[in-house]
Amino acid sequence: MDALELIDVYWRAANYLSVGQIYLLDNPLLTEPLRPEHIKPRLLGHWGTTPGLNFCFVHLNRIIRERDQDMIYIAGPGHGGPAAVAHAWLEGSYTEKYPEITQDAEGMRRLFRQFSFPGGIPSHVAPETPGSIHEGGELGYALAHAYGAAFDNPDLVVACVIGDGEAETGPLAASWHSNKFLDRSSDGVVLPILHLNGYKIANPTVLARIPEEELVKLMEGYGYRPHIVSGDDPAVMHALMAETLDTVFDQISEFKYGSADRLPMIILRTPKGWTGPAIVDGVPVEGTWRAHQVPLAAVRDNDEHRAMLEEWMRSYRPNELFDPEGRPVAAITETVPEGPRRMSANPHANGGELLRPLSLPDFRDYAVEVKEPAAAHSEPTRVLGGFLRDVIAANPVDFRLMGPDETASNRLSAVFEVTDRAWHAETLPTDENLSSDGRVMEVLSEHLCQGWLEAYLLTGRHGLFNSYEAFIHIVDAMFNQHAKWLQASKKIPWRRPVASLNYLLSSHVWRQDHNGFTHQDPGFLDVVVNKKAEVVRVYLPPDANTLLSVADHCLRSRDYVNVIVAGKQPVLDLFTMDEAVAHCTRGLGIIDWASNDEGAEPDVVLACAGDVPTLETLAAAALLREHLPELKVRVVNIVDLMRLQPPSEHPHGMSDDQFDALFTTDKPIIFNFHGYPWLIHRLTYRRTGHGNLHVRGYKEEGTTTTPFDMAMLNDIDRYHLVMDVIDRVPELGERAAHLRQRMVDARLRARAHTREHGEDLPEVRDWTWTPHADTP
Amino acid sequence: MDALELIDVYWRAANYLSVGQIYLLDNPLLTEPLRPEHIKPRLLGHWGTTPGLNFCFVHLNRIIRERDQDMIYIAGPGHGGPAAVAHAWLEGSYTEKYPEITQDAEGMRRLFRQFSFPGGIPSHVAPETPGSIHEGGELGYALAHAYGAAFDNPDLVVACVIGDGEAETGPLAASWHSNKFLDRSSDGVVLPILHLNGYKIANPTVLARIPEEELVKLMEGYGYRPHIVSGDDPAVMHALMAETLDTVFDQISEFKYGSADRLPMIILRTPKGWTGPAIVDGVPVEGTWRAHQVPLAAVRDNDEHRAMLEEWMRSYRPNELFDPEGRPVAAITETVPEGPRRMSANPHANGGELLRPLSLPDFRDYAVEVKEPAAAHSEPTRVLGGFLRDVIAANPVDFRLMGPDETASNRLSAVFEVTDRAWHAETLPTDENLSSDGRVMEVLSEHLCQGWLEAYLLTGRHGLFNSYEAFIHIVDAMFNQHAKWLQASKKIPWRRPVASLNYLLSSHVWRQDHNGFTHQDPGFLDVVVNKKAEVVRVYLPPDANTLLSVADHCLRSRDYVNVIVAGKQPVLDLFTMDEAVAHCTRGLGIIDWASNDEGAEPDVVLACAGDVPTLETLAAAALLREHLPELKVRVVNIVDLMRLQPPSEHPHGMSDDQFDALFTTDKPIIFNFHGYPWLIHRLTYRRTGHGNLHVRGYKEEGTTTTPFDMAMLNDIDRYHLVMDVIDRVPELGERAAHLRQRMVDARLRARAHTREHGEDLPEVRDWTWTPHADTP
Repeated sequence: MDALELIDVYWRAANYLSVGQIYLLDNPLLTEPLRPEHIKPRLLGHWGTTPGLNFCFVHLNRIIRERDQDMIYIAGPGHGGPAAVAHAWLEGSYTEKYPEITQDAEGMRRLFRQFSFPGGIPSHVAPETPGSIHEGGELGYALAHAYGAAFDNPDLVVACVIGDGEAETGPLAASWHSNKFLDRSSDGVVLPILHLNGYKIANPTVLARIPEEELVKLMEGYGYRPHIVSGDDPAVMHALMAETLDTVFDQISEFKYGSADRLPMIILRTPKGWTGPAIVDGVPVEGTWRAHQVPLAAVRDNDEHRAMLEEWMRSYRPNELFDPEGRPVAAITETVPEGPRRMSANPHANGGELLRPLSLPDFRDYAVEVKEPAAAHSEPTRVLGGFLRDVIAANPVDFRLMGPDETASNRLSAVFEVTDRAWHAETLPTDENLSSDGRVMEVLSEHLCQGWLEAYLLTGRHGLFNSYEAFIHIVDAMFNQHAKWLQASKKIPWRRPVASLNYLLSSHVWRQDHNGFTHQDPGFLDVVVNKKAEVVRVYLPPDANTLLSVADHCLRSRDYVNVIVAGKQPVLDLFTMDEAVAHCTRGLGIIDWASNDEGAEPDVVLACAGDVPTLETLAAAALLREHLPELKVRVVNIVDLMRLQPPSEHPHGMSDDQFDALFTTDKPIIFNFHGYPWLIHRLTYRRTGHGNLHVRGYKEEGTTTTPFDMAMLNDIDRYHLVMDVIDRVPELGERAAHLRQRMVDARLRARAHTREHGEDLPEVRDWTWTPHADTP
Repeated sequence: MDALELIDVYWRAANYLSVGQIYLLDNPLLTEPLRPEHIKPRLLGHWGTTPGLNFCFVHLNRIIRERDQDMIYIAGPGHGGPAAVAHAWLEGSYTEKYPEITQDAEGMRRLFRQFSFPGGIPSHVAPETPGSIHEGGELGYALAHAYGAAFDNPDLVVACVIGDGEAETGPLAASWHSNKFLDRSSDGVVLPILHLNGYKIANPTVLARIPEEELVKLMEGYGYRPHIVSGDDPAVMHALMAETLDTVFDQISEFKYGSADRLPMIILRTPKGWTGPAIVDGVPVEGTWRAHQVPLAAVRDNDEHRAMLEEWMRSYRPNELFDPEGRPVAAITETVPEGPRRMSANPHANGGELLRPLSLPDFRDYAVEVKEPAAAHSEPTRVLGGFLRDVIAANPVDFRLMGPDETASNRLSAVFEVTDRAWHAETLPTDENLSSDGRVMEVLSEHLCQGWLEAYLLTGRHGLFNSYEAFIHIVDAMFNQHAKWLQASKKIPWRRPVASLNYLLSSHVWRQDHNGFTHQDPGFLDVVVNKKAEVVRVYLPPDANTLLSVADHCLRSRDYVNVIVAGKQPVLDLFTMDEAVAHCTRGLGIIDWASNDEGAEPDVVLACAGDVPTLETLAAAALLREHLPELKVRVVNIVDLMRLQPPSEHPHGMSDDQFDALFTTDKPIIFNFHGYPWLIHRLTYRRTGHGNLHVRGYKEEGTTTTPFDMAMLNDIDRYHLVMDVIDRVPELGERAAHLRQRMVDARLRARAHTREHGEDLPEVRDWTWTPHADTP
């Protein structure tokens, strides 16, 4: 057989296996006529996109063999699960990963049965699918993932099939411009294959229905060299695709060697449900939206449909594809790539196999000196920037810092001492810190930052995403999908652990006073904690040294999503580095110097989580110590939010005994929290003392004002905390009542000063509070 | 003065007023040299984008006057607040809305002082800004908003300035293709002005740095006719922009009259911080990223900077712009458009002024007949589809149904009896239900659906967005911004109420068994309830008639975000229409026929919210009635989730007395919830009986399986609920222990059957449970 005939054999085999997965419980080789009991009771799966995906797989396989090309495959049309599974089975890697799914008739039967079947595998390309780093459940992220995989893999080609449905999404539309961030020598190459089969679910797609001239301009406008492969005759299309791929890979070489500035892409136009039933029940199916899911819907009960299914499957001539034992014929097994060159077995698609631990400098070396607590100030993220600078320097090819143009704004600028922002487009003399191989990726798209980083991690590298806290909600849905991927991967033995996805949320709710209401939203934490406890971690370090300790811990961790919330504005240095390590290791603890319960049972517990709430709590404690010294106050700071949950709910959760010992079972607890107050209730509602817990936090009161005014608007300020304590300890008597009135007055005075002068009173300004400077 | 000179006067005035807002507390007309006390203590605001926005404003004003064009303006670069405010003040509408900000020196002083000042106005274009429907706090949505405003406003032009930073976002990148959904006769026109000033915050932008030939192709590829206006000499640029706009509006006329197929757009390339300080402290500022915020940062303390500011402001020649009393000169006031033609006073930008109540058919006419409860089944969204069909028919120009190609999947297909999907691109013979003026907007981008609908509502129309529940997280951030807009608008007397943003979330977590884990996420509700109680409402109607009642209520409401979660699969009909109305009006209530407490105190309360959890709860109650008849069970169903909160937290909240009477204060409450269980704890933690509350819900256990298996995986199934009851009523004795074991066995049997046969057992399959058919 010539090369194109071999390609067609493989393609027919993959198509046959795909249809079998969607329909059959048994009789995989059609050794007898199909009977109702051979058919699945629930037909779940999507045929429409599948033959096109199979077409790309086999043609890319030829290139891999001929050019010994390192390549992985991203199937954007996520419902194409049957294609990716069929491919892995034909390449043998499915059986390597799942030995019970043998490469024979019995294995084929099991392969068919398990697909989209209870106890089996999902209908999408998923973590269970060998060779994949991309789950297609939610659409939009294929091309961003492809680029993330290509960064710092100079010999890799990432073939990325983009469905024309997915191409309508925002994240995908933005992803085309990722080529401006790709370095020709240190990065690999992405080959986008825009697969136009014409329809999304029930509708035509935009890119399939605009004039071809416009589509070509669009791709050229995105900076690619488009090649069109269009048709429906398999023989013609095989020749055209092969020829096009030869050209495309020549152009990729030209790009890599610097003789071309633009990378190629392919526009592949084939019928939806190609090679499936043309007409069913009198209406056209192949080439229409009706081919999206199962072209024949009543196969179990309708004899005619069942006969059509059999005819359809036999049209692939299974006897030419599999031997009588159900093994793929030599024309298949001898032409697939070998070992790790198989796209279904490429180690880049199981990144944990390639993962090397980061070479981390000792974070203690970056500590700020703390001679006494709460006496000096640091900008935590600026301190962290020094550590990150050296992380980048020590790991020049497998660590990236992502952010939507906020790295400097978030005060991580020290990193620019050793690297630049990745930038492959034009530069001007006034530009700073741009170069084609910069380690910092800045694009004004949280979707791209997230998508790039996800794939960078899943292919075995490390990174951190820094963002304004409020706008990280833009990627809520992407976070959800990544957390689900991690959770599913943990149950798959052959998926090796990957580096955690680390978020640094700065410019947070309490210091967006200048940008106002739209920039104030601490609710990402609520989204995060809804995911499985085994994959999510939330940290709220209150000062520079605790931030360093937390960041080091997160960079060493595997298979988590770590969310760190830390401010960029000056806050008090509270912990020496040794204390910080101890505090972060415990996850929470009493701040002795701010407490006066001296080991005994306190009258009230002031708890706090988050930098600004902690400062206000410390200030409140100081006021109470000074003015109501007989009141025994305990200050508890929480760094690791998950410690608040019971151990049954989260592995970091602390026992009820520990909780009761820290927070008491019967004393008022005033909890000053960084985010929405309900989150604390949600984490603690099972605790004995929960009825005494009163939480302050952000309650959607915001505007353009001053920092302290923001705190007051939401009642997290020191004065209001003192009032809260007094209101909950009724036995305090007249002195307390007098102090309470002074607090009310102090708030009014602070508010009036702000309205009059446009700035905070000196004693509260810029959070430069010290323990004895704020007597009202 | 000729037209271009008049334009320059206005532009200089707007620029002067913009700089004044950013810097000055006093001395607005520079009647004396600037002193430190004239300068704001905190300099907040963004100069970079502002002169470009002012340039567009004044040039569009000329067109409005010359062509009597109805036009509104969307300022994508949201930090351009000073420009929009300056414009409104010059047009007189600012003073109309805020009489204390007079059009004279004292008003100008107040205008300057209030900008980005405590107690004043935000630094962004915001609800407080006359003439705006678009808040620029979070970037990405300008162009989608522009199209949403243009739909069904055939005489309107929506000028939309898109910053080149924002252009990097996914939602913006997708929005360009909105032109495929615009009808030339029944819709208005969007004029995109891509404003390339070269930088986002600290970085160059992609579109400013690709070759111009590529940029032009990109815009042509998006289906526009691009026109380039590029330069930095104001006189040359005025002439070029005026000439270009004449051409552009001629082309818009050609499009409207059918002699052109493509609409124009403008690429405007001007220096960032145009006309501001060129060099500051020895480094270039104008035309660089340093001009992004305040070009002169130390004006209060640095004499040189202050002198430069004064020189800069005087460069606009204020004495030619304002008379000695500070009033704009006649060259300005006589050349701005008149009345509602002013973009700052156009009623489309205060949509409540134009809002007409929907003409709604009587939803009771669509009721399913319920002769006895729980005896027959309906598909709730299919029933709703009939109602929506007639809503669309009765409101042909001001109601739209949005969705990411899921209208049919969500079983609302009845709407296609009276309308089509909007589609302006090519159609093929096999297509169905496409036409250029369809009322159904389907694009595979939740961002576009949301953005279009937001602006459609803010310009005074109505609509509903239907989506798969899991993927609505894609627009979490957009929801946040819209909720904040509504909340801010409620405090602004001149902002008239607009129609609520209605979400219908279907294909929900409990019926994504076939699509698997990635399609299962009920967490949008958690995001929603974080916003202010005054703007959010959440409804979980358990059957078809309650869905109709809820939908009618939502479509009549104003200024809310309403979230309705309702399934498309068959569920039991529980309520006659009269009962449904009563139940929905109360928001929650006892289901008498499922309870056997007969008005007395029950032994246990089974609470439920959501269609599938309600069915499982009813089945559990039936099992308990049959097998443990001595146990007094009360079944409470919750439709309006906000009823659970205290009245202090939400206007729909019920009193503690009511709550205690329904749920008891001391009996076990087993609450079967649609979403994440913690949400119920969060809403009820202050209630007396909260300690007895045990919530079942989705706990991130999902896969591809059967519906009942999904319920079992998360312990919300009938059998587990019975076990939960038995575990919490220890005095039940041996019969209960025996029943409990039967429940355990029933679960194992159901699981085994599913794994073996790929479908649910008949007695639980397809939720077609009836009260006496499920004895285990």
